[in-house]
Amino acid sequence: MESCTILPFSRSLSLFSPRSNGDEARPGSSLFKRCSSRPTRIGCQKMYVAGFGEASPEKKAANHLHKFFTYIAVRIVSAQLESYNREAYNELAEFLSRHSLNDGDKFCAELMRESSRHQALALRILEVRSAYCKQDFEWDNLKRVASKMMDEANTRLMREYVLDHVETESGK
Amino acid sequence: MESCTILPFSRSLSLFSPRSNGDEARPGSSLFKRCSSRPTRIGCQKMYVAGFGEASPEKKAANHLHKFFTYIAVRIVSAQLESYNREAYNELAEFLSRHSLNDGDKFCAELMRESSRHQALALRILEVRSAYCKQDFEWDNLKRVASKMMDEANTRLMREYVLDHVETESGK
Repeated sequence: MESCTILPFSRSLSLFSPRSNGDEARPGSSLFKRCSSRPTRIGCQKMYVAGFGEASPEKKAANHLHKFFTYIAVRIVSAQLESYNREAYNELAEFLSRHSLNDGDKFCAELMRESSRHQALALRILEVRSAYCKQDFEWDNLKRVASKMMDEANTRLMREYVLDHVETESGK
Repeated sequence: MESCTILPFSRSLSLFSPRSNGDEARPGSSLFKRCSSRPTRIGCQKMYVAGFGEASPEKKAANHLHKFFTYIAVRIVSAQLESYNREAYNELAEFLSRHSLNDGDKFCAELMRESSRHQALALRILEVRSAYCKQDFEWDNLKRVASKMMDEANTRLMREYVLDHVETESGK
């Protein structure tokens, strides 16, 4: 996980599809029309995100978090089993070596059908991922961390560019 | 994006690393120790997620949302340009065809250094992704959608399993 470099959100990127949307908006700029011009979003002052069809960005993000929570639940259950039920721990490890966790729901469905012991593990994973999503995951913290990360990344990118630019200029 | 099947969160999965953590907890079960036994998390009633090291699950999720927001910002800016500045739109499209959006920060850094016109595009993308993260993205909705998705997925998985089981039994 730590070495992940692939971003699913940007997969199958089709920014330049034939359809045209002229109702995008950017706060603070009169250059851009606001999405309030869309009959379906009356009074909306938000930027229009093109190309998401029926699924909102929030739903896309929730879908990926859903998979993340399954991954987290598998980690939690696995660590629990490791300390008191090595047999089940090994069974889960063996199952994981044969099945991908990329699609959490598919993983759970397959785990349920492996054997009665695996079924019990699957039910626990379902229970844990639900509890984690609703009780343990710090949603407010997520927003705070994401906002901070955004500020830091933007500042760093601009600073690095300026430094590079100064070095290039001084090297001339 | 719609066809995404790869989950980054579960990449480099190393659930079964040699280290052992015996302080995992599950709400409502006396079988599991609570993470309050950890001196660093006194009074914590949350499930312990093993293997995350210094980075919390919230930080991991925020990191992926950060990339998602860059992707969203590129979509927004691209759609804006399409309606009033075809030249810049084509330049961005051409740049996108040569550079991956998997790492949003790297993409922006490279866009900044392409040319002065590309630099202006990059600065706009930085501005838009920050505004989107802080103003437009519906964080409360994200939590609501994720919780609903979790309930629906768990119910569906269990229902499908029961139906399969009934069919198998009746087929005997």
